[in-house]
Amino acid sequence: MQQADIQWSPEERSIAESALNRAHDREITAIIDCVRERASKISQVEDVWQLHDFLSARRHDIDGKYDDRESFLIFTLSKLIKDKLLNLSELKGLAADKRAKVSVLTRM
Amino acid sequence: MQQADIQWSPEERSIAESALNRAHDREITAIIDCVRERASKISQVEDVWQLHDFLSARRHDIDGKYDDRESFLIFTLSKLIKDKLLNLSELKGLAADKRAKVSVLTRM
Repeated sequence: MQQADIQWSPEERSIAESALNRAHDREITAIIDCVRERASKISQVEDVWQLHDFLSARRHDIDGKYDDRESFLIFTLSKLIKDKLLNLSELKGLAADKRAKVSVLTRM
Repeated sequence: MQQADIQWSPEERSIAESALNRAHDREITAIIDCVRERASKISQVEDVWQLHDFLSARRHDIDGKYDDRESFLIFTLSKLIKDKLLNLSELKGLAADKRAKVSVLTRM
């Protein structure tokens, strides 16, 4: 989903980038915790390959998730909120129309 | 590498299967130990993806490694010895010509 008509000020870019970084840190921390827990419970070969499948899926998901191109930022931010990696209140400082667009997308 | 001309008695098949199972168990045990150790040391995202790369490589390797078709058994066994997952002495009971072939292949 592309929003080519939206203009971002340098301050807004910075707020969005910080939000993306924060969400990324949260996601990675959760993955690390999960890997440690799964690894501690591994007892047979199936557990090893299930961990591999889990990491493959997470890596694939993360690879496309943090798109910070301006034309995708609204969609990226709304997706992170839907995934509970960000809160709308953390986008304070963005123009009201951008926050409204993000908010609408989180309900779609 | 195929050796279609070699005949295997039921007893020899059984010895070879046991050897393959033993090697597989050893390899899996080593992987589980390695995963546990790596997981306990994960501190950043690169460590997570390095663990994923490690598991991808091990899975790919193992997928083709334990070929128990009779025409491939000599090669499979020699590869496991080269990888230090089996010892030639564990193939006691195989006909001398088969053990000799395995032994030659381990030096190639």
